[in-house]
Amino acid sequence: MLDQICLPIRRELNEAERVLEQYVVSRVSLATEVVQYTIANKGKRLRPVLFLLAARLAGAPSDALPSIAAAFECFHSASLLHDDVVDEALARRGKQAARMKWGNQISVLAGDFLWCCATSLIRESSPPRLFSATTQAVMETAEGELLEITHQNNPDYDRQTYMKIIEGKTAALFALCGRGAAIMADASSQHEKALESFARHVGIAFQLTDDVLDYAGTDKSMGKSVGSDLREGRLTLPLIVAFEKAQGEERRKIREALLSTELSKEQMRSAIDIVKESGGIQTTLECAGAHIERAKSYMTAFRPSIERDSLISLANYVLEREA
Amino acid sequence: MLDQICLPIRRELNEAERVLEQYVVSRVSLATEVVQYTIANKGKRLRPVLFLLAARLAGAPSDALPSIAAAFECFHSASLLHDDVVDEALARRGKQAARMKWGNQISVLAGDFLWCCATSLIRESSPPRLFSATTQAVMETAEGELLEITHQNNPDYDRQTYMKIIEGKTAALFALCGRGAAIMADASSQHEKALESFARHVGIAFQLTDDVLDYAGTDKSMGKSVGSDLREGRLTLPLIVAFEKAQGEERRKIREALLSTELSKEQMRSAIDIVKESGGIQTTLECAGAHIERAKSYMTAFRPSIERDSLISLANYVLEREA
Repeated sequence: MLDQICLPIRRELNEAERVLEQYVVSRVSLATEVVQYTIANKGKRLRPVLFLLAARLAGAPSDALPSIAAAFECFHSASLLHDDVVDEALARRGKQAARMKWGNQISVLAGDFLWCCATSLIRESSPPRLFSATTQAVMETAEGELLEITHQNNPDYDRQTYMKIIEGKTAALFALCGRGAAIMADASSQHEKALESFARHVGIAFQLTDDVLDYAGTDKSMGKSVGSDLREGRLTLPLIVAFEKAQGEERRKIREALLSTELSKEQMRSAIDIVKESGGIQTTLECAGAHIERAKSYMTAFRPSIERDSLISLANYVLEREA
Repeated sequence: MLDQICLPIRRELNEAERVLEQYVVSRVSLATEVVQYTIANKGKRLRPVLFLLAARLAGAPSDALPSIAAAFECFHSASLLHDDVVDEALARRGKQAARMKWGNQISVLAGDFLWCCATSLIRESSPPRLFSATTQAVMETAEGELLEITHQNNPDYDRQTYMKIIEGKTAALFALCGRGAAIMADASSQHEKALESFARHVGIAFQLTDDVLDYAGTDKSMGKSVGSDLREGRLTLPLIVAFEKAQGEERRKIREALLSTELSKEQMRSAIDIVKESGGIQTTLECAGAHIERAKSYMTAFRPSIERDSLISLANYVLEREA
């Protein structure tokens, strides 16, 4: 499905891959090795795809687009390198996390290096206004993650805080891809607002489905272990819903699981069951669906085109993906 | 002595402090708390002092200088937050390291946030050429640290590699302070080269004396535990010299200490004694002295002034400091 979606931007996407391969290199061979491992461990390149489609939809000239798309992917990968350290993750996208292969120290520094590469790329290829927007979005990402950690292992935590966290840690960078596309096209403020909002809501839905997959997916499809949010004391919407509905014994079990530092298999299975039975997964998917609908509504600002179709398909894909 | 040195730039330095206090804040209170703890844990502000003096010497207009000085200090503090995680440090400047107070996760993310603040500050206050130079220097800093880790616990390691590491991890940011001052003054390329070289050699000497203090200082004066380089398997010049000269039993002891993961007090004392007896400390101080002389030679490009005197005093201070 993603292949189909990417048809209108195949050339720019290939060019962005080339930039990633050729630009993100260091005189220190270990730095190159770690960052290329992280980048080559291909995710879905959702952010570059979204940015490139939106830029084409808005009518941006294509010269600088691949470098900017590559920079956005670099910011994302840099934050993954740090997140793996922060989350003490074992695996990422079905492969060993960099920190398991090279250790925390190297992951932190390689993330810093990658961040520098991303900053350089953006500085070289984009107008000051896009650069400002990027700095702002990257800052919001870090703030969202800090806010999340503040609430780790905290059972008294509500939907509002959860939404604030995911708007920062995930949706800010998505929104930047939409807004950046408009800036590169010198689009009207109405179009800029539409693309930014489209991308932000897709980003929110992406995180919501991610949080569902952490309960409902399989280790194999996810490429990381299921239940990791609970294991790390992260209260996501599926569990928040379960906790809101739970009474007595169930409530105690969830609280215990969330506060526990060493979660037994039994506790994990029981918590996952409670989440499933409470309808937490269904509610979260509905919430994601509503954000995708909201996202798509912003597309009415544009005339029909193959790029618009692709963006709409991308929004649907985020909702329907199984990994 | 630093007070005397700072006389010509007292106003700008105070203003830089105000920028640090007022600009480096987050909507996430924890982020503000951690970064303000790190920044307020005042180091000597050597980088801002060097930048401001050099900028005044080169004749830069003063409006934007405090913000840029603050940004340089932020980059430095951000890298300290990450270094403490990388080095598993317990203390920093006589106070508990942030990672001991809030944990590794928060230190990594707070460092990222501070980095964003620094990038924003630079972007808002400086011309594109200074921004490029900054990105480049920050990248060299990360690369130098990565190179250092590559050689951790490696006894077969030479002076050349050591110099490459400290030129990256420490001197690159110093050099930026000199070069940045020239850029802000729109100085001639000869003056730019002179200020950059002055600052780079001061930076190299700073790291060399730091590495001496790690063997010859006291815990109290250093604000961190003496011997930490050896404990973390870092081969610095004092030890390299000792290793070059050592034979048989002594050589074995150094190698063992460097490779050991749990260094006993006895091993540590013995290694420190070998370093002192080998003349490793004297040689390193001489090397630092040579870099300070080299640095000062670049000052002949400028006419005598109170700023030039202060820069020369600053260079001497770096060599003579006891902490």
